[in-house]
Amino acid sequence: MLDTKYSQYIQHRIDQKTKPLGALGLLEKVAHQLALIQSQGKESAVEHIELNKPSIIIFAGDHGVADEGVSIAPSAVTQQMVLNFLSGGAAINCFCAVNNIDITVVDTGILLPIESDNPMLISQRLGTRTNNFANEAAMSLETVERGIELGAELVSRTISNGTKIIMFGEMGIGNTSSASAILSALANRTAVECVGLGTGINNEQLARKVAVVEQGVARCTGLDPKSILAQVGGYEIVQMVGAFLGAYQNRTPVLVDGFIVSVAAYVATLIEPNCRDYMIFAHRSEESGHKILLELLDAEPLLDLGLRLGEGTGAALAMPIIRAAVEFYNNMASFESAGVTV
Amino acid sequence: MLDTKYSQYIQHRIDQKTKPLGALGLLEKVAHQLALIQSQGKESAVEHIELNKPSIIIFAGDHGVADEGVSIAPSAVTQQMVLNFLSGGAAINCFCAVNNIDITVVDTGILLPIESDNPMLISQRLGTRTNNFANEAAMSLETVERGIELGAELVSRTISNGTKIIMFGEMGIGNTSSASAILSALANRTAVECVGLGTGINNEQLARKVAVVEQGVARCTGLDPKSILAQVGGYEIVQMVGAFLGAYQNRTPVLVDGFIVSVAAYVATLIEPNCRDYMIFAHRSEESGHKILLELLDAEPLLDLGLRLGEGTGAALAMPIIRAAVEFYNNMASFESAGVTV
Repeated sequence: MLDTKYSQYIQHRIDQKTKPLGALGLLEKVAHQLALIQSQGKESAVEHIELNKPSIIIFAGDHGVADEGVSIAPSAVTQQMVLNFLSGGAAINCFCAVNNIDITVVDTGILLPIESDNPMLISQRLGTRTNNFANEAAMSLETVERGIELGAELVSRTISNGTKIIMFGEMGIGNTSSASAILSALANRTAVECVGLGTGINNEQLARKVAVVEQGVARCTGLDPKSILAQVGGYEIVQMVGAFLGAYQNRTPVLVDGFIVSVAAYVATLIEPNCRDYMIFAHRSEESGHKILLELLDAEPLLDLGLRLGEGTGAALAMPIIRAAVEFYNNMASFESAGVTV
Repeated sequence: MLDTKYSQYIQHRIDQKTKPLGALGLLEKVAHQLALIQSQGKESAVEHIELNKPSIIIFAGDHGVADEGVSIAPSAVTQQMVLNFLSGGAAINCFCAVNNIDITVVDTGILLPIESDNPMLISQRLGTRTNNFANEAAMSLETVERGIELGAELVSRTISNGTKIIMFGEMGIGNTSSASAILSALANRTAVECVGLGTGINNEQLARKVAVVEQGVARCTGLDPKSILAQVGGYEIVQMVGAFLGAYQNRTPVLVDGFIVSVAAYVATLIEPNCRDYMIFAHRSEESGHKILLELLDAEPLLDLGLRLGEGTGAALAMPIIRAAVEFYNNMASFESAGVTV
């Protein structure tokens, strides 16, 4: 739990800004949360929130379940999209370019590895795509543990390089099926409630996806979160769970993207509930399971732009809102300093 | 009406980007609209949308109706807030600073004029605050015409200096009462439907505000939009109506802020319906009348952050979404260029 001893001071500081009480809505909540996080363990509350080097880590991994025809594209496209990230051509590259966000891409186990000395690319392969969870466990429990470790370590290294706010994105054909199955198993919701259209499948594929998720979830009864990850998870999701835990260990806020990243966030809170204090939710995904997750995480996202892309695009688009919240906390005049007599 | 002959090409260009069809939601609509606007009269559709020098013009004016106790603050605060804008201390300054937006502040008739050679400040005073519309016409019809002219001319000058997208903000104690009355009169809705809490009045003040709006609207039956502005308008609102018309005359898109700016936008569409094609709606205000306006204007705003401040803050906060939409239209890879085989 965050120490809230500076909470009242921070709220007072916000309330003394030259605006009616509460008039900046969600930006006030963001500023409060960030100020409280950065005041932990300090001798007084921070007057200046730091946002140095916002960074996104995109975790890419492939899924054996893609063979079941649950996606609009085959696993080979994961590699193609990773190459697109590395050459700067994807949506996430565009949004990070305009919003000054550093990008790292992690191969957590894509079907077709990439030979490249591009410094954006990090290899943390847990295997050559997961097993097809419709029929068997996606990976071993040891692999889950190893993935969580690797994700946490990478985030720690990123933070030690000066990053004060971090985002995670993902790429992996089939990963909405995995995320839906994890959610269904953890939250005890039906597959129908947790499965959505992904990036745009038809109704027949949707029915197939529900059936496949049900097959995987059937093996999850009574299992703990890590064992559920082993049954129906994905390499990129497992490493993101570790990434959230790493951000928490380093007391660093995470701007949380859409459905798949939120599943990893939720798993992280089941392992370490205090993680939640460091999460800011960026956007409301079109994916139906995201609504359930936002309720479970008691989260009110900043944006609702009808996105259904992944890659961390929702988080990257929300970064300017965070900057605006921090700027008003740091630099906006108070009634006293401005001579405003409300 | 916009010439839509390039619409299909623009949509094709968007659909060929490396993302599932429609996966960027509202950003795709924004990119389409901006590309279509900038393709008007050209020999082919633009491949590169230009967003040079985004600028906000904040129109400040005072309202005689403030004497009725319909606001949380007296008219003197309008001047104090204008001084705050000029010294860089207000919320709008913070949001423009982080989002690289130029600010101009216009005195359209505030109670206490400002002696200043600050180049941000422009004086286009239509009077020393309006008459109290509870009892009499706020201004003459000639003043309305003059204000519309001044607003349009200022926007034309701004655009001739290179601005490719423009925003309007407002400051004026009492101006939600004026905006509510204009909406009530134009849209034939009751005062209760159109009046909200402004920046935070109590229930007693709210009842008083409804009664005052009803008094003003009672004189508006059967009047045309400009005559309604004369009865219950404000100097800043009148100049903003002109500003929207000026943006249209210069075929320049406007990123539309919340309730009060949207009232001016609506009046502008009643004078010149083609104005609407150049409007992008930035945010959903907490003010109850804004919902009615968004329906009348068939508008789906980009942001919903619980703001109730004015100043153009919603527009300034939405500017990075516009930049992101333009960046993906201009620079995101296509399936062909990236070698992605979906």
